[in-house]
Amino acid sequence: MSILLYELAGADDHRIFSPFCWRIRMALLHKGLDFKSIPWRFSDKEKIAHSGQSRVPVLEDGDTVVSDSWAIACYLDDHYPNHPSLFGGKDGQALSRFYYDWVGWTLQTALVRLVLMDIFNHLHPNDKAYFRHSREHRFGMSLEQVSADRDQAVVDFRQKTLVPLRETLQTQAYLGGDRPLYADYIVFGAFQWARAISPFPLLDRDDPIYRWRDTLLDAFDGAARQSTGYAV
Amino acid sequence: MSILLYELAGADDHRIFSPFCWRIRMALLHKGLDFKSIPWRFSDKEKIAHSGQSRVPVLEDGDTVVSDSWAIACYLDDHYPNHPSLFGGKDGQALSRFYYDWVGWTLQTALVRLVLMDIFNHLHPNDKAYFRHSREHRFGMSLEQVSADRDQAVVDFRQKTLVPLRETLQTQAYLGGDRPLYADYIVFGAFQWARAISPFPLLDRDDPIYRWRDTLLDAFDGAARQSTGYAV
Repeated sequence: MSILLYELAGADDHRIFSPFCWRIRMALLHKGLDFKSIPWRFSDKEKIAHSGQSRVPVLEDGDTVVSDSWAIACYLDDHYPNHPSLFGGKDGQALSRFYYDWVGWTLQTALVRLVLMDIFNHLHPNDKAYFRHSREHRFGMSLEQVSADRDQAVVDFRQKTLVPLRETLQTQAYLGGDRPLYADYIVFGAFQWARAISPFPLLDRDDPIYRWRDTLLDAFDGAARQSTGYAV
Repeated sequence: MSILLYELAGADDHRIFSPFCWRIRMALLHKGLDFKSIPWRFSDKEKIAHSGQSRVPVLEDGDTVVSDSWAIACYLDDHYPNHPSLFGGKDGQALSRFYYDWVGWTLQTALVRLVLMDIFNHLHPNDKAYFRHSREHRFGMSLEQVSADRDQAVVDFRQKTLVPLRETLQTQAYLGGDRPLYADYIVFGAFQWARAISPFPLLDRDDPIYRWRDTLLDAFDGAARQSTGYAV
């Protein structure tokens, strides 16, 4: 029985756009594990009720149900030790945790302001009211206002937020060294999230981060590039 | 013959305050390697001329001279594989690089603005003119102006810059997991730099980062705590 992965989709089933789901999709491809994607929306709470919580990704592997992207990645490396490692062992797993927090608290926090209206525009109609209400509450302003200054904000995003990532990717091909590890997929998930729903160019084409992202779009027979999104 | 480490000192030989030197001092202690510290000042260029460049740390190990903190850490792990590892292998080494860039470009860039005048006040008299000229050129304003708003700036430092670090250290004891790795020393070096020269409190006492720093101040028989500095 193949692994099932519940992933957040837009109005289109093939527009997979949760950054956390993308991490796990790439992790499953990295480990060479077959899986079946099940599109999920914010309004489908009952579909994942058996996971005991209300967010995706949720992974089902036989009788095992795991939620939370970090827990899923750890499960996959522990449970499939003979498949390519996501962490490179216990030390690598510990060292990967800061990527999780940097992407969640710094990178994605800066990024979401640039693409919030684009997310809204691609949601399933059933999800729109929930999304507008919850995000406007979080930001304390309308969705339209959050992204209004993005032509200015993207300059700071490139010149400040992305600097340490760019520096590392100028020194080595991947965060994992000469080949990607889960840390790469944590960061890549943020860019796939944007790519799935936004035509707004986040990266200059001569940015080392653009080149790194391109190699991950090409990885696994171009799985990430072929997913529904914008070629920016 | 023991290892020699050239380290930036203030007017007082025991006030070791380069963040890059602290990384290597902790790395040597971690590996259990004996070393002799040689105090160095910005004006002592000829003392390290044999390293082919003009910055510390410089490490001399017999006939081998290595400069640049990252290169020194890699040298130590490669050359002393039977001593405790700084990286946890090649994957851990690659994953540690982003810490180097995050600390250099994000953490230390935010931190230096808070303590720049305190650095100046502790410099050797021979170094003061060089330091004022080079830093005022870099910041485009007087040293006094850079740190003038630090009571405000430290709020952002704690609530924005430090968030991902705090989140990780709430999840696990060290960046390296249940014991420190070189990634921990990269970050710790930034706080030791501040501690050596500034009475300005960067961290609240109930901050998980404060607790983490405390355990590293106690490590290796309190070597870092006993160095000249401020108990903040």
